[in-house]
Amino acid sequence: MFEKLFENVRQKSPLIHNITNYVTVNDCANMLLACGASPIMADDSGEAEEITAICGGLNINIGTLNQHTIPAMFAAGKRANALGHPVVLDPVGAGASTLRTNTALDLLKDVKFTVIRGNISEIKTLTLGSGTTRGVDADVSDKVTEENLNEAVSFARDFSRQTGAVIAVTGAIDIVTDGERSFCIRNGRPEMSAVTGTGCQLSALSAAFVTANPDHPLEAAAAAVCAMGLCGEIACRRMREPDGNSSYRNYIIDAMYRLTPAALEEGANYEMR
Amino acid sequence: MFEKLFENVRQKSPLIHNITNYVTVNDCANMLLACGASPIMADDSGEAEEITAICGGLNINIGTLNQHTIPAMFAAGKRANALGHPVVLDPVGAGASTLRTNTALDLLKDVKFTVIRGNISEIKTLTLGSGTTRGVDADVSDKVTEENLNEAVSFARDFSRQTGAVIAVTGAIDIVTDGERSFCIRNGRPEMSAVTGTGCQLSALSAAFVTANPDHPLEAAAAAVCAMGLCGEIACRRMREPDGNSSYRNYIIDAMYRLTPAALEEGANYEMR
Amino acid sequence: MFEKLFENVRQKSPLIHNITNYVTVNDCANMLLACGASPIMADDSGEAEEITAICGGLNINIGTLNQHTIPAMFAAGKRANALGHPVVLDPVGAGASTLRTNTALDLLKDVKFTVIRGNISEIKTLTLGSGTTRGVDADVSDKVTEENLNEAVSFARDFSRQTGAVIAVTGAIDIVTDGERSFCIRNGRPEMSAVTGTGCQLSALSAAFVTANPDHPLEAAAAAVCAMGLCGEIACRRMREPDGNSSYRNYIIDAMYRLTPAALEEGANYEMR
Repeated sequence: MFEKLFENVRQKSPLIHNITNYVTVNDCANMLLACGASPIMADDSGEAEEITAICGGLNINIGTLNQHTIPAMFAAGKRANALGHPVVLDPVGAGASTLRTNTALDLLKDVKFTVIRGNISEIKTLTLGSGTTRGVDADVSDKVTEENLNEAVSFARDFSRQTGAVIAVTGAIDIVTDGERSFCIRNGRPEMSAVTGTGCQLSALSAAFVTANPDHPLEAAAAAVCAMGLCGEIACRRMREPDGNSSYRNYIIDAMYRLTPAALEEGANYEMR
Repeated sequence: MFEKLFENVRQKSPLIHNITNYVTVNDCANMLLACGASPIMADDSGEAEEITAICGGLNINIGTLNQHTIPAMFAAGKRANALGHPVVLDPVGAGASTLRTNTALDLLKDVKFTVIRGNISEIKTLTLGSGTTRGVDADVSDKVTEENLNEAVSFARDFSRQTGAVIAVTGAIDIVTDGERSFCIRNGRPEMSAVTGTGCQLSALSAAFVTANPDHPLEAAAAAVCAMGLCGEIACRRMREPDGNSSYRNYIIDAMYRLTPAALEEGANYEMR
Repeated sequence: MFEKLFENVRQKSPLIHNITNYVTVNDCANMLLACGASPIMADDSGEAEEITAICGGLNINIGTLNQHTIPAMFAAGKRANALGHPVVLDPVGAGASTLRTNTALDLLKDVKFTVIRGNISEIKTLTLGSGTTRGVDADVSDKVTEENLNEAVSFARDFSRQTGAVIAVTGAIDIVTDGERSFCIRNGRPEMSAVTGTGCQLSALSAAFVTANPDHPLEAAAAAVCAMGLCGEIACRRMREPDGNSSYRNYIIDAMYRLTPAALEEGANYEMR
């Protein structure tokens, strides 16, 4: 079914409102274009609600949040909820500062999210109210492995039930769950962590997929996670001797631009738990 | 004459002050360097006027405007006017929110622009005071085609007479007019719309061209539009099987870095109406 | 010894807090990842101190400073000092506006810097309290050449003694001095000035090197300068006919990703004065 879900993105070309960080914003815009969606970035509270209203979905990323963009996140989130638009939360660095943790927790109170995507440390921070995030990367002690996978699935499932959101915990093994069914996804490459913003791009991509497939948020989010990982694999195979993380970054976005719905269906590597 | 106009950019290396959005700012800086100009970005009202004063030209882009950068746009614009510096306006997303529309309209009242460059929906918004921009892309119903080209030229010409600015309406066919003579330009590739910021880069480029050629704003703006489109064509011919929009983005800037004034003269594809 | 210093970066993977400009921030993040460090960007005063506290080092870059990020620079700088973390200052465009000049001078008063890296015009501005910076590039009249090298070394040495910081003046010939010993470095390529942000990337890299080598700030900063220049050389050799400044930008970061400590040791081109 991933084939159909991706076809919907390419055919509907959903317009996605991004309130995101300035570190990876250009990559998020190009990734959205690569998958067939259209990006718009707007983070002033003087226009956030109006911009959300003309879009199909909203992607909130707290990567370089500040006192002026935080109110825009709340305003846009509530407006998107009122309009029935899908909303994605990327709690970048939750646990790294009180401001990030509290902003993410307050957003969870005021806004109903369709998808919450983060690394395991960020998601744990949201459940516990505090965390041990190592900057914007997951803490080593938290990492999801084959050994603790069932435990991690169970944890994500509980958080999904608590929030009503699809939870996407991404890392070496990705978990995407709606509290009932859980995708355990093994697409992707470890080299992706040497490119800044692959997580941010995935959140933007998830917003595009759930917006184009409003009746299937779980499958749409899982398809986005598989697509991103698959592009990481395709791009990795393209790497030649002098290429490094900057070429890899380009190749990942290129791979999404070239990815066909059929290739996603075939390359998606997951099991249900 | 485009050859000479481009030579002036490369020889004079004009310093361009950009108050622009953070989505495509890096590409604008590299595009300015690629054409031979020098970029500086500064958007705090505490320094905007001073920075403009040491530059040769100013490029105002409202792509991610906010309450703090808007005053800097006005201050820098007025100062540039007082100094006789060329000023370019890129009304990104005018029509998508009241804040964008009103900011652009207010800028038109307070600042005299040398060039206004936007897609057809953005420019229509400026003439009508409201619009139907689809996010940051032109609305399909507005698009300039061979069938409605004369009508679009006439519309742009009127707006040019009203504002005293060279109007550059870019799309499948580009129109650049000073209210008397109008260039209809057929350089460029549809694939350019899959790269975020090609419009922003063109506005920055236009600022470099009009700053290096202060006595020929119409021809300088038209040369910039042809140069950008030509680089899109050259970059497109360089595309190989695994390349996508991210490689294309790099190739477009690369093409500008390599473009010679003679090649611009030869590759420019336009007619006068 | 550069081999060992670079090995320490790769092994310790220092977490670097960057308060930097939005023009080149993505490149700074990917450059830090390329050298083996981890970046985090945070510039709101509501979290700047906390973020610095979880990091190993701090990099302050005033490239697009504004009224909201300036207080974060001071707060983070003082906190890093209190914690004994290395702090790097990149006074981008000091001399181009009063705001930049005064912010840099005030930072020098309130924060003790481990390394100050800039072009010769920026550094002269800091010593004189005013300057003739041409935007963000060095003024031609200031440039360090073989003829005035001894004079420039002496000038940098004096500024190092005055501030207690390692001073890195970068240009055609780079000078890195702690007031006693001075490295004169001849790595690098003139083409690097056609890529926006190579200076910003070097400052971020310097922060990674001094953080991973706290007992050798002079040698660590010199190693970072050699590494950046060497990557510029390696990337330049990779350039093919259609490549321009955008490909060059990618190749420089790629080169850092591939650079081995042994290759840095071998390729570093410097003399002591």
